Order: sequence, then structure tokens, then C-alpha cells
Amino acid sequence: MANYQHILVAVDFSKEFEAVLAKAIEQQKINGARMTLVHVVEYTGAMYTGEIPLPEDLDLDQRLAKQAESKLQAMIDERQLQNTTHLVEIGTPKREIVRVAEEQKADLIIIGSHGRHGLQLLLGSTANGVLHLAKCDVLAIRVESD
Amino acid sequence: MANYQHILVAVDFSKEFEAVLAKAIEQQKINGARMTLVHVVEYTGAMYTGEIPLPEDLDLDQRLAKQAESKLQAMIDERQLQNTTHLVEIGTPKREIVRVAEEQKADLIIIGSHGRHGLQLLLGSTANGVLHLAKCDVLAIRVESD
Repeated sequence: MANYQHILVAVDFSKEFEAVLAKAIEQQKINGARMTLVHVVEYTGAMYTGEIPLPEDLDLDQRLAKQAESKLQAMIDERQLQNTTHLVEIGTPKREIVRVAEEQKADLIIIGSHGRHGLQLLLGSTANGVLHLAKCDVLAIRVESD
Repeated sequence: MANYQHILVAVDFSKEFEAVLAKAIEQQKINGARMTLVHVVEYTGAMYTGEIPLPEDLDLDQRLAKQAESKLQAMIDERQLQNTTHLVEIGTPKREIVRVAEEQKADLIIIGSHGRHGLQLLLGSTANGVLHLAKCDVLAIRVESD
């Protein structure tokens, strides 16, 4: 009854993400939950402030989103994940993850968490931002980073 | 195999903690884990900077710790929690929680997380600090606060 019903997993395609996914799948199984994999393409549109038109880069976000869609689908197919869908969003990762979680009525967000030191600690991390903003529970999976 | 084996639950005795404990017990069950309840008495010794001896307050931390021991034991007895022990530490909550988790080889810390706004957001929270410092996974349970 109190188990999680719908787990949203934040996918960042890093090499450490494999460990996060493995744990997410395990939690999906023992909770008997459905799972949504979400990847957020960080919005790059605002970065272009030049005067010369760069038509090819204007839809960079869209192209990255399309690539991400394929990668997520491959992730699901390769592992034959059951009861799992995927979504790609464009924007600020922490905000999009939290927004999608609310929209999809996820009751648990699973996200990789890197150790932070010094300046990185001050700047915060996506996991941190999600923890602040989320209306639901958050499982932060510790991954090793350099 | 990838399940959590030892769950450390940070207990703060707030009225919202009931919801955290209920979820922790559920996660303990489905993971087949053992559970340790830990409460940290915030170190008050350093707060006293007066010149007049206050013998009664010198052991305030110790008295609070003793009370906490009883409350944790009652929590375990009332709910007839299986495979569950408790610990009381004195110090800075985030640091003690993380230290105990390492010492006890816990692989998951469960902690209540309150929504934060404005100044509270800047000051951070215990859940936040634990997320930064922990070497293991952290499940932050969202609780409603005023």
C-alpha cells in the first residue's frame, strides 16, 4: 500500500548512470512500480547571442532531444524493461524533472548524486535542486565521480 | 542482490516523522533489510559562554540523549519493529548521521525532507547536508511543514 507506484528516473547518459539504472530497476521490481525514464536536454537557445544567423544550431536542442529519444528507447529495448516509458524534455534539468514528476504523478524520483566539494558544493547539483523542489520523495543514488 | 541491506533512519521526533517512519518500515520490509533508528541531539555545550557555573545545564546534552534513548526504544516496542536497533548521538545532525551510516555500514539513509523557501533555502537543511556528505544512497521523504 505504501509502496511506490510510479518511479521517475532522471537519466543523464553519464558512464555512472549504469549503476543508477541498475538500482532503479531493482527498486521498480520490489515496489512493483511503473517507471518513466526522463532525460532533460539543457536549454542552449539562450546561449547564442551573435549577430550572424546560425540556422544549423537554432534547432540544436531539438536534435539533441531526438538523439536522446533514441538512446532512451534503446536503453529500454536492450534491457527489455517492463512497464517502462520514456520522455525527453528541454530546459533546466532540476525544474523539468520536478515538473514532469508532478505532471506524471510520480511518487518517487530516482537521481544520481555526485560527491561535491568546494565551488561545486556552493553551486549545488541537480540532485540537490530536485531535493529542494520536488513535491514527492527523492532517492539519491551515490555515484563515484572524479 | 542489489537490495538495501541496512537502512539508517534519521529520527527527529517531529510530528511529521510518523509519515517518514511508516515509509521507512515499508522500505525495510520490501528490501528485507535491517534498520537502525538514529537520533542526534544537537550539541549545546558550546552555547554556554557565561562566567557563572551552571552545573545543571552542563549535562543537558546527556540528559536529552537519555530521553531520546527511551523514546526510540518506545518507538520500536510500540510498533514491534523487527530487526531494528537504535542509537543516539550528540553533535551536528548531518555530520553525525553520515558518520554513523559509515560506521554501521548502512547502504541507505532515510530522512525527512521539508520544503524550504527563502532564507531557509539558503541555510540549507539536514536532508541537504546529508545528501552532500553521505557516501551511500539517500532517500528523502517529503513531509509537509508550515
